Formats: sequence, structure tokens, C-alpha cells
Amino acid sequence: MNDPVPAPGAGTAGLDRLLSPQSIAMVGASDNVGSIGGQVFANLVRAFDGPVYPVNAKGGQVQGVTASTSIMDLPQAVDMAVVAVPAPHVPAVIEACGAKGVGGVTLITSGFAEAGPEGAALQDEVAAAARRGGVRVIGPNCIGYMNLAGGVMANFALPPTTPLPPTGPVALVSQSGGFGSYITTKAILAGLRLGWFVSTGNEVDVNIAAVLRYLVELEATRVLMVFSETLRDPELFIDAAVRAAELDKPLVLLKAGRSDEAARAALSHTASIVGSARAMDAVCRQYGVFVVSTMEEMLDLGMIFQDGRRVRDRRVGIMTTSGGAGVLLADASASVGLAVPELPEDEQQAMRDVMPVPFYGSTTNPVDTTAQVVRMPESFEKVLNAVGGSRVVDMILPVIWAAPGPTTDALIEFYQSTAKPVAITSTAWLDVLQEAGVPTYTDPQRAARALAAVAQLSLRSLDFSTLSSWKPDRVRAESARALLSTAAGRPTVLESTSKEVLAAYGVPVTREEMAHDVVEAVEAALRLGGPVALKVMSYDLPHKSESGAIRLGVKGADAVVAAYEDMMAEVRRRAPDAVIEGVLVSEMAPSRLELTCGLQRDPVFGPIVAVGLGGVLIEILSEASMLRAPFGLEEARRLVGDMMGGRLARSPRGLGEAEQVEVARVMVGLSELSLELEEIAEIDVNPILVADGSVRAADALIVFAP
Amino acid sequence: MNDPVPAPGAGTAGLDRLLSPQSIAMVGASDNVGSIGGQVFANLVRAFDGPVYPVNAKGGQVQGVTASTSIMDLPQAVDMAVVAVPAPHVPAVIEACGAKGVGGVTLITSGFAEAGPEGAALQDEVAAAARRGGVRVIGPNCIGYMNLAGGVMANFALPPTTPLPPTGPVALVSQSGGFGSYITTKAILAGLRLGWFVSTGNEVDVNIAAVLRYLVELEATRVLMVFSETLRDPELFIDAAVRAAELDKPLVLLKAGRSDEAARAALSHTASIVGSARAMDAVCRQYGVFVVSTMEEMLDLGMIFQDGRRVRDRRVGIMTTSGGAGVLLADASASVGLAVPELPEDEQQAMRDVMPVPFYGSTTNPVDTTAQVVRMPESFEKVLNAVGGSRVVDMILPVIWAAPGPTTDALIEFYQSTAKPVAITSTAWLDVLQEAGVPTYTDPQRAARALAAVAQLSLRSLDFSTLSSWKPDRVRAESARALLSTAAGRPTVLESTSKEVLAAYGVPVTREEMAHDVVEAVEAALRLGGPVALKVMSYDLPHKSESGAIRLGVKGADAVVAAYEDMMAEVRRRAPDAVIEGVLVSEMAPSRLELTCGLQRDPVFGPIVAVGLGGVLIEILSEASMLRAPFGLEEARRLVGDMMGGRLARSPRGLGEAEQVEVARVMVGLSELSLELEEIAEIDVNPILVADGSVRAADALIVFAP
Repeated sequence: MNDPVPAPGAGTAGLDRLLSPQSIAMVGASDNVGSIGGQVFANLVRAFDGPVYPVNAKGGQVQGVTASTSIMDLPQAVDMAVVAVPAPHVPAVIEACGAKGVGGVTLITSGFAEAGPEGAALQDEVAAAARRGGVRVIGPNCIGYMNLAGGVMANFALPPTTPLPPTGPVALVSQSGGFGSYITTKAILAGLRLGWFVSTGNEVDVNIAAVLRYLVELEATRVLMVFSETLRDPELFIDAAVRAAELDKPLVLLKAGRSDEAARAALSHTASIVGSARAMDAVCRQYGVFVVSTMEEMLDLGMIFQDGRRVRDRRVGIMTTSGGAGVLLADASASVGLAVPELPEDEQQAMRDVMPVPFYGSTTNPVDTTAQVVRMPESFEKVLNAVGGSRVVDMILPVIWAAPGPTTDALIEFYQSTAKPVAITSTAWLDVLQEAGVPTYTDPQRAARALAAVAQLSLRSLDFSTLSSWKPDRVRAESARALLSTAAGRPTVLESTSKEVLAAYGVPVTREEMAHDVVEAVEAALRLGGPVALKVMSYDLPHKSESGAIRLGVKGADAVVAAYEDMMAEVRRRAPDAVIEGVLVSEMAPSRLELTCGLQRDPVFGPIVAVGLGGVLIEILSEASMLRAPFGLEEARRLVGDMMGGRLARSPRGLGEAEQVEVARVMVGLSELSLELEEIAEIDVNPILVADGSVRAADALIVFAP
Repeated sequence: MNDPVPAPGAGTAGLDRLLSPQSIAMVGASDNVGSIGGQVFANLVRAFDGPVYPVNAKGGQVQGVTASTSIMDLPQAVDMAVVAVPAPHVPAVIEACGAKGVGGVTLITSGFAEAGPEGAALQDEVAAAARRGGVRVIGPNCIGYMNLAGGVMANFALPPTTPLPPTGPVALVSQSGGFGSYITTKAILAGLRLGWFVSTGNEVDVNIAAVLRYLVELEATRVLMVFSETLRDPELFIDAAVRAAELDKPLVLLKAGRSDEAARAALSHTASIVGSARAMDAVCRQYGVFVVSTMEEMLDLGMIFQDGRRVRDRRVGIMTTSGGAGVLLADASASVGLAVPELPEDEQQAMRDVMPVPFYGSTTNPVDTTAQVVRMPESFEKVLNAVGGSRVVDMILPVIWAAPGPTTDALIEFYQSTAKPVAITSTAWLDVLQEAGVPTYTDPQRAARALAAVAQLSLRSLDFSTLSSWKPDRVRAESARALLSTAAGRPTVLESTSKEVLAAYGVPVTREEMAHDVVEAVEAALRLGGPVALKVMSYDLPHKSESGAIRLGVKGADAVVAAYEDMMAEVRRRAPDAVIEGVLVSEMAPSRLELTCGLQRDPVFGPIVAVGLGGVLIEILSEASMLRAPFGLEEARRLVGDMMGGRLARSPRGLGEAEQVEVARVMVGLSELSLELEEIAEIDVNPILVADGSVRAADALIVFAP
């Protein structure tokens, strides 16, 4: 690809001038408000308090302001210049910006890497000019950005004729300008208070990770939402995620390009390659990023997160005028892991005192007031406050018909008086509710899911200490390298050596000895005791079972002799050219469950350690849990505890406590190994036998990087 | 519970007079339009063409019409009477309706089974009066119904002051009146054309299944949507589902009461018990019902189904002005199983001819016109028609900003000119699109899922022939009963006998013989050949492994003797009182995969046969596929092919074709057995060993009904 490498360490340097400027110029500002250059200029002028200078090659008046003909003629070195001139002129403009001392450029023009090889070459010129001049660049092929608190409307995402939305704590970052502005439009309709929208387009310099890393530190920004197609700087993204978690600011990610179909589309429209969706999901889970699968879910979370409320437990109080809605909300709550506790009897009695007579509803929870209460505003208010004030309720799910009136007023008042999160289910959005900032949803499931996200955010325990504290162990790495040296020049490492290397990293492996003839094999088997496995070690036979190079469960001297001879004969017949290094004699470890653990290097995120069910089920279930290295034992143990939705740990015949720790230890071993021995591309530990509180790696294969 | 049993076979008899009346009375009609009795009467009068008679104990004028003081004084035996008088008066009113010859009653009053034992007793009186008088009753505790084509607004779901919505092909049935009217309100907002909304409340007589069975036969009704808490007549529901499938009318179900929390809520508000959610899901899948998990998903499907379009394949054409939106739509399409094929080169060339110059978008699919095309209405229209007309596209997914104008007009015109399904993603609903009936969604994923539902509806192959053609085999049942008689009076059947019974139903079992001493065991083992399993048969030891009553993989006479003695000693020690019937000597069948198959009797749906992964994984994965008996071999084979999302069949080491058929045969055996031998409550066949194209039941337990 033609993506230029960002200057090392550039990160967020200089982004303050670019994104929070005190002075602005626009190159390509147009008097025609129907054109993009006219729209952006009109947006700049209407929102910005400081100076906005139009630059236009023809000079003259632009929307009533006298234009300079060149950036060099500006009366000052502006912090930020918007550039919207035809692509071929852009490199020269960037060059001039550098010469003039402009801080950063918002480059709106299209026709670069997304437009084929010529455009890509032009984009490289832009990158070079920016680097030379020390100018940070957003874009090209973007829709610009909006910083409402700073008064910067450097975009054509919103037409200059629509009213400026009020600023707020939510920041949206999107590579795609078009879809980003789509989300922006919808977000404003939905009542989200956006303080920022930044589109990064082709990301010749500034990418979404850098923008996130910049925004996360701003005090006014309390919720981060990102629509991403490609992640160009995974380290910086993780850094932003970690900072967001440390500052208790939720980061919500909508990732496009998960399917082959979408990857093709992404490639054709920004010339960018999408990463592995599964690695992305795993990394997000590890660093506390909320991954959503639809745009509306992103907005739903933004809506509940924007008021910054938190909970101490996951108990929800449901209030409805319809029993059926109550049942559906209870279902929805349970399906996302929220509890719907019965209310204490004294609280129920207090509610019954204000309910209609006769009362055919329910006060347990869901509290069903019946529809009559809609005509009894005082009762409605009292019940609402009783549910909200209940000592067993952490958050509240009321259902309403969208109609302004006393019940809506009561809801707004209640929302403003409580510190507990509230998510209203309504037939439609209501202006009064949105203006008051009351989180409102049009479906019970969406309301419940939003509250569940608040619970997750409030109650999660993330620990990133390993990320900063982990240090390589040079002594261990050297001794592992000595073991690996026996395989120098080969693509893979023998099972026997692979397990020695793993053992050096604390991975429990089967007891075993290498034998070079049948006599040594028998002696080894007798020393090990019990039934043994015999396996032919050969660099030419990495997949032993395919060539008959393995015998399992052999017990007693005679049986070992027979199995050994039989196996060697079969291998000589099926793989006559294989050079045999010896025969590995291993104990047969007990096994109630088989797991597998592996190391892969993701092209985007680097070393990823995966754990999953073993045997034939790997392929069938193909569900693995993953962590990016480095990580600590406790992180790994938590992941193992959550395998298969927690069922593997919960099941009476599943993984016991001690076994979970042992499996976690295997993962940590692979993690440390991946960081200390970069020459290793891949490791496959399969099967890991689990029984009686301990685990044992029964086979392992290390593959070198080519 | 206090639910009365509906008169046998009542089903839909008389529903025509109740739901499509030619004359109407209202008992409890009120002059106060703020009251329920006033609202319903106003609704009746404004919509109905025929006579509407108010009945009011005080007589006088009701909203300008002279009221009768009693139903007996009406000038005719009306087809339908709405009843909204206080609960204690209702039995007498129903009695009078019967005496007068009224066809049916819409009973709106609350205070019956949902209000405790007294109300339940009153409801029983209503049921008795209705049966005596031959009056069909909807309700009580409902919100009434709406039949727009028939001009019947017998409800207070919509206020009489709002305009009457236009009629249409969609029918909504809901037990819950409150939530039903909520969905109705939202449906009308979303542009659904509802012809019917029926709420059934406490279902003293008419239940949702009966209403569905009635509505499905109406020509004008082409889409059925149901919100259900309890299914009181599962047979009639299945009958309605089968008719819907036969008539190619989609039936969409939103089921409440899936969780314990919701079950408690349901119990408290309609005094009704919810069934097993998993059995319900399985039955719906089997009979072609679309099960949704949220209200909005139900409306989304109603929206795409209401124009009745169908497809021949699942290929989607995506048109967008934003590359990012295209990537997200491609993802969304792939995630619901739709294909996004590249367009043929000639079609792409034709599009490029009308695209902006220079063109930085894409014509492959997603077709990304770039935002410039929004200002080129002619190009927009041509590209839209090209994508829609493509020979590799079955349905179309366009993305638009919600703004009236030429592109919206072009979309409407295109929609009306094509027979292919179209689902638009828009930032918001647009009146013009809704009035034109163009299916519009506010999220890419929701639009894609709607089209996927059309594909599923169009391309599915349902076969209900077994349901009507299956006949019991009395000879087979008698011989099975003879085998079972050896266990008469016991709660369970011995493994050996259980497998003989299963074998009689065509289930392949392991070869085996019963031995009564060690000599017989050795002889049996030698006759079977190869390694064998030894299992102690005792009615006192249904769980053999817990009492040491099993030895596996025993080979050779000496080993059989040793294992036999050892096992018997262990059993005598661990279960000294167990009466031993013999020792079962079985072949050790080969096994690449272990499955399990079981029969359970669901309290709502009756015999359900389940199949899933066996061994320790049953508990961990707890994912089973189920069919309600009776079903045919092909139905079962399709289910087995879809196990674990199809992965079990697709995986190279998963279930082969022949093995799938054999597993299906086991399921059919259990199905037939469940219908012929009603004394059997439960069967557990576990494990079923799968290898080399065949399957063998290695253990089985039959449990009698208490």
C-alpha cells in the first residue's frame, strides 16, 4: 500500500494547534455557498470567534471578506488551515504552510490514494511536504472536523444553514467522512450532545488513534465514539483505550470491514487494508473498549454514557403502565445480565397506597401501575420516585407513550433529581425529553442494553499494570535460544524441544524422555511408569499422526517393544526419506477435558495468545478467547473463567479453580515467550490435558518466522 | 390456574360475527369522552358504517344517540357487543347477550383473573355464561380490537381524536392490550399499514392462536405479527402457522416471558404461566414462524413483508454516497447471510459513464457514487436503476440522508417500478417515503436483516406432510410394550431393555448380550469379538458410573474375567442393597464424535426430540437442536445439518452426509416412539457414537411417566 509511515513518535504532537486553533485560514474558500469551498468557509465564519482568513488564488471578496491570494500573504502564521483546492495543487499549498509556520492542515480535497496509483503518488508528495514543514495534516479525502467548544466548524458535514447544535461531552471520530457525518446527523437527532466530530479520511498523517489519544485528555470530553475501518496505529489506539479506562471515560467502537465483502469495499474506497476482526475484538475486550455491531447501538450507548452516571450493582427497577411491556422489559433486562429484584414489602405497601382503587396491577417489580395512572399524575410521580428511590434498585427503566404532558414532566423532574441511571422506553423520541437530556430509547431491548453497558463500565475491573511493568528476562531468553539452536535453519522445532522451551516459560508439560533405540525406549517407559506414548521425532514429520509416527497408551516392556517396532516400520514405509532424530517416550497424562493454546502474530496487533477447546471441537466450534501480549496471570485467569460465556468454568465437570489458574499460566508463558523470542512466528500447544486440578501440555509445535 | 378450558373444537367458530360484525352494540357506552366507555363508543361511531347501539343502565343520550337500558331491548341481535361495565355486572350482561342471540362480546373490563382469586371466580362465571349462551368472548382485561377494512374500532388503543390510519395487509395480535397498543402506535409511526390489531387480554375464551387462525384465511391479511406471553392453544397455533406457510404469509412472533424474571411478571399480571422458551423457539423454527427478540425487529420485518415481494436468490446490491457506509452495509449483509456480488463489467461501465468526473468512488458493489452525485439527480437515478436492474442483484440496499428532494423522488419512483425488495437506510424516517410505502430503516444492520428475512421466506423449503400423514404402527407399539412390561412398576427401564425398545424403532444400537455369570460374560465377549464394555444391569443403579457398575475396553477372556470380578466386588461394596439383573456385554463401537439424543415432553407442546453434542460438552455448551413430534426423516436431517450453526456438518471432521442421515433416523425413532408409547415420559440416548459413516447408541435410559 501507499500509506506513508507517520514520523516516529509524532503521535499527538502539534494536534492542539490543528484541532483547537486560535486562528484559521482557508485555502480554496469560495464565494459560491453551494460549493464545498463555500460551505466550509461559511461554517468556519459562523462558528469561530477568532480570525478566519480566506485564501483564493483569484483574490477578491469571499462571502464579504477580502481574500489573500496565497498562504504566504496571510498577516499571521495561523494555527490551522483548511485546504480545499484541487488535488494537484495540494503539495505546493502544504509546502507553503510549512514555510509560513502554519500548525496544521485540514485537507478536505479528494483524489489521492483512494483514486488509484497517481493519486497515491500525490498523497506521498503531501506526506513528504508535511514532514518537511512540520505541519500536521488531517485527511485528505475527509469531510473535516467540528470542535463546538472551540468554535471550529471546519467541515461540510453539517450545512451552514442548519442551526449549530449545542456542545456536549461526546466526541465522535470516524475515518469515513460521509458515514461519519451520517452518524453525526443521526446523533444530533437522537439527542446526543456532541462536542466533537473528527473525520480522518485517508490518514496521510493524523489517524483515528492519534485523534482519540488527543481527545481523551480533554476535560470536556467524557465519552469517545469511533467508527473505524482500518487501524493504522494500534499501539496508540491501545494507549488511548488505556487512558480512557484510567480516566473512566467510555470508548465505544463500531468497526467496519469484518467480512470479505466489506474488506473489498474498504480496499476500493480508501485503499486501506482491514485487520483481523477477531484480533480487534479481543484487544478491545482486553483494554475495556465497548465494541458495538450497529450504528444505533453506538448512539444508544453514547446516549446513556453522556450524563456520566455510574452504579454499584446491576439491579434494575422497571415501571410500566402495561403488564405486557413489563414482561418484555424483564426479559430484556435478564437477557443482558441485569437483575430485576422484587421490591421490599414496605416499599410495595407505600406504592399500593397511591395506586388506583381497585388496583389490578403489580408492585413487585416490574411495577405495573396499569394505564389508569396516566390520568393520575400525582400517583405516577409518587410511584416513579418510589421505584427510583428503592434501596434494591440501582437504575430505572420506565416505559411511556410519547406524549408531552404531566407524566413526561414528572419523568424529567425525576431524572434531574436522581443520580441513578435512567433509560426510558418510548414509542418515539420526544423533544422535551431530549432537551432535558433524558436517555430515551424506542425499544425495550435497547434501553436494557444501554443500562447493562453502564453496569459493565461501573463494575469492571481492568488492570493494565503488566502492560507497563513487564520486562523481558534475558537469562531465560538466552537458555531458550540455546534449546532452539538445535533446530537452526529448520522451519519448525521438534515436539521434544518445543516442550523444553515451553517448560522454561513455566508451561507444565508431560514428563518424557528421548530414546534412540528400542532399549532406551523400554527403559524410559519403565522409569516413567504407567502407560506411555511413543512418538517419532523428525523435522520431516511435523504432523505425526499422518505418517503413523505415534502410538498411545502403551504399557509394559513387551508392549513398548512391539509398539516401537511397529511404529518404526510404518514410518519407514510411509515416509522412507524422513530423517529420524529419536523417539519421544511420554507419560499418558489423565484427561477429563482437552484444551488448546496457541500463539499467533497478528499483522496489526502483534502477538496474540489464544485458548480454546481442543480435539475435533476446535474446528467445529472455532471459538477461541484471546489476549494480546503482555498480560498478567490474573487477566488470563479472568479470560479463562469467561470462556464459552463462562460455561466452561461454571459447569460441574468443566474447569475447576486450580485448573483455570494452570491454563492461565500456560497463556502467560506463551505471552512472555512471544515477547522475548521474536524469531518465533507461531506456537500450537494441542492438546492441553486437564484433569484433577492440573493441566499438562501433551504436544506442542513451535514455528519459526520465515 | 383458573383458566377455563375452551369448548372443545370451538377454535375459530363464530369469530366472523365477533371480529367482522355487521351490527354493533356497546354496553357501558358513556357520554363522557374522557372515560374508557366514552372513548370506545366514539371510536365505534366514527369508523363503523352499520348500526352502533349504545346500552347504558341509566338510559338517556350517549354522544347524541339514545341508549337502550338493556341488551334485551336492542332492536336486533347484534353480531358483536363491546362490554365495558364494572366486573361484577359482567356475568349478567354475558347471560343477556346469550339470551338475545348476540354473536360475540369484546370484553374490555378489568378485575378478573389478573386481580386475584375473587376476580378469577368471576372470570369462571363469565366463561360459563358465554358457553351456555354460545357467545364468543374476547378479553376480559383487554384493550379491544381494530378491524380497519370492516370499520370496527372496538378499542381505546387509539384515541378517537387521532385520524384513522389507512388500512393495510398487516395484522397484529397481542395478548397484552397496553403493549399491543404501544406496538400499534409505533407501527403506524413507522409506516406499517395495519389492517388489524386484536388484543386478547385474559383469554377467557378466544386466544391469540384462534385469532391468528381466523385472520390467516382473510385475503386482505398478508402479514401476521403476534406478541405473545402465554400460548393457551399450541395445536391451534401450529395449525395457524402451517396455514400461514401454505398461503405464503409470513408470521412474526415476539415472545415475552423467556426469563424467570419475566415469568414472575407475567404470572402477576395475567395470572398466566409462560411455557418453555426453548421449546417455543424450536416449534417456531419447525413451522416457519419468524421469531424476533425485540419489538423493533418485529416492526422491521412487518415493514419489508407488507409489500409481499419475494426473491429467487440472496444477492444484494448496495448503493451509497459514502464509502464508509458501503463497508458497513457489506458487513451487515454478510453477517446475515446475504451475498454482495461484484457487478458484471458491462454494468459497471454503464455506471461509470454517468458518474462525476473525476470519479473517486466505486462501481463494483457496494456502488459508491461519492457525495457529488447527490447534486446530480439524473446520475443518481441512472445509477440506482442500474444497480436495481443488475442481473446479479435480487434486492437493493440504498443509503440516503433523510431530506426530501430529487434523490428521494428518484428512490420512490424506482421503488414503484421494480419488483425487487428494497430496504433503504436513512438517518431518519421521511414522510414521503413512508406514504409511498418504501421500507425505510434507521440502521444498516436492520435494513440488511429485513432483506435477509425476505430471502429466508422466499427460499425456505418447509414440508409439513408428516404432520398430517403420520399414523401409529400398532404392531410395533405392542411389541415394544411387551419389552417394557419387564420393567412394569419401576420408574425407569434397564439399559438393555431400553436399547431393545429403541432398536424396534429403528435406532441403531451397539451389539450386545446379557450375561448372568462370568462364564456367560466371557462367552458373550468372545462372540462379539474385539474389546467390550461390561455394565451391571440393576433397577437400583440407573447411573452406572457413580457406583462403579461399568468397565470399558476389556479385551480377551482373562481380562473379561478380571474386570467382571472387580466390577461386581466394587458394586457390592458401594451399593450392597442393589438387586442385580445381569451384566450387559457390549461391543466397543468406534467413535470420532459423541452425540446425545433425548425425548422430553414439554408442558405446552408435548413430545420434543432434541439432539446435541455429547459427553462433558452437553453441560458446557448446552446447545441442542429440537423438533416436535411427529416429523419426517428429511426434516430431521435438515436440522442435523444445521446443528451448531451448520459447523458440525461443514467441518471436515464433523458429521458426514451418511452420518447425518443416521442421526436423523435416531431422532425419527424417538419421535414415533413418543407418539405410540405415551407412558414414556423421557428418553436419554447418550452417548451416540459416530464414526466411519455410521452411528450407534451406546447407552440409553427410558423413564416412565409417574
